[in-house]
Amino acid sequence: MSVVIPDDLVEKGKTRIVMIVMDGLGGLPDPSTGKTELETAETPHLDALARTAALGQILPVGVGITSGSGPGHLALFGYDPLVWNIGRGVLSGLGVAFPLETGDVATRLNFATVDASGNITDRRAGRPSDDENRRLVARLRERVKPPAGVQVFFESEKEHRLVLVLRGQGLSADLLDTDPQQTGVPALAVKGTTPAGEKSAPVVQQVLDQARAALRDEPVANAVLARGFAEYRAYPTFMDRYKLKALAIARYPMYRGVARLVGMDIQPPPDSDQGVVDALAQRWSEYDFFFLHFKYPDSRGEDGDFAAKAKAIANVDPLIPGITALNPDVIIVTGDHSTPARWKAHSWHPSPLLLASKWARPAGAQGFGETECAVHGELGTFLAKDLMTLALAHAGRLAKYGA
Amino acid sequence: MSVVIPDDLVEKGKTRIVMIVMDGLGGLPDPSTGKTELETAETPHLDALARTAALGQILPVGVGITSGSGPGHLALFGYDPLVWNIGRGVLSGLGVAFPLETGDVATRLNFATVDASGNITDRRAGRPSDDENRRLVARLRERVKPPAGVQVFFESEKEHRLVLVLRGQGLSADLLDTDPQQTGVPALAVKGTTPAGEKSAPVVQQVLDQARAALRDEPVANAVLARGFAEYRAYPTFMDRYKLKALAIARYPMYRGVARLVGMDIQPPPDSDQGVVDALAQRWSEYDFFFLHFKYPDSRGEDGDFAAKAKAIANVDPLIPGITALNPDVIIVTGDHSTPARWKAHSWHPSPLLLASKWARPAGAQGFGETECAVHGELGTFLAKDLMTLALAHAGRLAKYGA
Repeated sequence: MSVVIPDDLVEKGKTRIVMIVMDGLGGLPDPSTGKTELETAETPHLDALARTAALGQILPVGVGITSGSGPGHLALFGYDPLVWNIGRGVLSGLGVAFPLETGDVATRLNFATVDASGNITDRRAGRPSDDENRRLVARLRERVKPPAGVQVFFESEKEHRLVLVLRGQGLSADLLDTDPQQTGVPALAVKGTTPAGEKSAPVVQQVLDQARAALRDEPVANAVLARGFAEYRAYPTFMDRYKLKALAIARYPMYRGVARLVGMDIQPPPDSDQGVVDALAQRWSEYDFFFLHFKYPDSRGEDGDFAAKAKAIANVDPLIPGITALNPDVIIVTGDHSTPARWKAHSWHPSPLLLASKWARPAGAQGFGETECAVHGELGTFLAKDLMTLALAHAGRLAKYGA
Repeated sequence: MSVVIPDDLVEKGKTRIVMIVMDGLGGLPDPSTGKTELETAETPHLDALARTAALGQILPVGVGITSGSGPGHLALFGYDPLVWNIGRGVLSGLGVAFPLETGDVATRLNFATVDASGNITDRRAGRPSDDENRRLVARLRERVKPPAGVQVFFESEKEHRLVLVLRGQGLSADLLDTDPQQTGVPALAVKGTTPAGEKSAPVVQQVLDQARAALRDEPVANAVLARGFAEYRAYPTFMDRYKLKALAIARYPMYRGVARLVGMDIQPPPDSDQGVVDALAQRWSEYDFFFLHFKYPDSRGEDGDFAAKAKAIANVDPLIPGITALNPDVIIVTGDHSTPARWKAHSWHPSPLLLASKWARPAGAQGFGETECAVHGELGTFLAKDLMTLALAHAGRLAKYGA
């Protein structure tokens, strides 16, 4: 079931594909009603679309595997997440639009608080404001001196989060986190997991020691903890693989980051969900493929708030007419993974999938929901990495294989 | 759909998984009722469980492939049967609890009857009693002299079956059977299928010739036939792969053999199906994973007796409350392959699968049966080797993949 598109099948075309990702869409039923968040939400427009669409279920990584957002989106974009996995550091670097180069080693840092003996008292330094974050980053930039032959970049992310990028010959990201994931103990020393990592460890330690020294007299954010060292490598782009000029419209940095990784153009972040659709309409004539990301179903799922997650899904529904009015050739609605409110975290359950196109073969569904996708799914259950092939086919952009 | 669990995702936990295997569970409909053996059987407790469970279908090896019991169980245990195939000789050796070592060459032998000119008249020597079998094996042990540098072990199995194990430097199991699968002809000579096998063939032939000589004056069992030469190699264990302490409760030796192969502890064989559940309750606090095996659905399917197979399935149903009363976190009910009574043998049809857990997403099934599993299966149809990943996920024992 794991098909790679034979390269020469992809054709240019004038058709347009819209992929709508409701983050963490899939859920679990409320035991009192037997309905999931999606099945509970009022979604008349999605239901109408589902009645004419092909439905199915997709697995981000594989049976039983819970996916992070990075691999979940890579799979939706057609990149096998077991081959093209992506570390937190690179994801964060892309999210803040840092121009990563092949070989760069990136890691997420947290500002943290340590006591006089160096033991961590707050792994997030009281969640500083973004302004405070920028002030602290400026201090790091000013005081940390790059080791010989290495360039060092600090970039603000949000609240307690920042990104550290190291650029230099032979640096390796085979390094363990220095964040011990608990308080009352000191930060861990940088440690390599391979010979290359062991060689890089002292260089990275030197940078982190300087960062610590630079923050020593700060009242709260007086330390940093590293999580998710990762090396950047260039990905083949949407244009390379699919001959698609692609635009990402996403309000949250991380999703713009993954889109940038696969060569999509990035729309400046709209300040509302309606703004996402307005941007789509504005840029409609310029692109072949549009990735639209809606974050809140996942956030409310992680909160464990069933009603709020259903509402977050319902809030996307009124945007659908504005999208269908543009007459896309293919509309996909799905999630990057499930986030059931009852589970309060990402889960392994398949994501419901709706693919609307004039070439869809509907199988009797009355609306959009997990059970309808399982029971009336012409598409069956398949790996998310094969979704793009299906989208290209429905867009008339794949030639016949063989004579 | 063929995902290996990235190793570092497996976490320890306090949850418990019960895997109930009804051997040869899947069937074909009786043309007069349109219902399979499982759908015909009275199974009120399984039906109730199915209404709250996730259903699906699993393929032991692949689409259209009929599986033996060895590969069928290895797949259920998460070992790709195309990679970890296991020969009959090793399976038999494990079944009689012989302490196989890596490199051992094992084969099943049948006692057989040959006439004065050496032609086979009965491939099973009139199915001797187990006592008679033990007497004959003692004679072989006494009279067969090991070739230089080789250790030779004979072990009784049941009726006409015994196991021969050869241990020595450089021995290969790349050998064809000496059982010609017909009467009126002599046993075949030992023949290698590779250069290594050709080198081992004379050594094995020498042992078989001695065995023949040792039995020459027996009135009935005056020869042996070899079936299924196989080399033993150590398998990674359930603890290695899944961090699960596992117990097998199975009344038939072969199934204890496969379980032993993957490092499960083995419960002394209960003398009734109720005894299987009693043993489960007794050992409940000691293990994380329990493999329960029920043999009769397969036996009655092989007999071609539809009603008896349905009855054998119905007989397992009353055991379910005793299992659910223990509050397992995950209950799986499935088969290792299908054995439709109409087909009178193992078949390639997928096995119906029921997975009950508090995190299951039911999809409208009213009971447990092949059609409900196909039509109302949230889990879809997937390879049996991925079932363990799903079980671990539902047991909360798998971390998220990627950031």
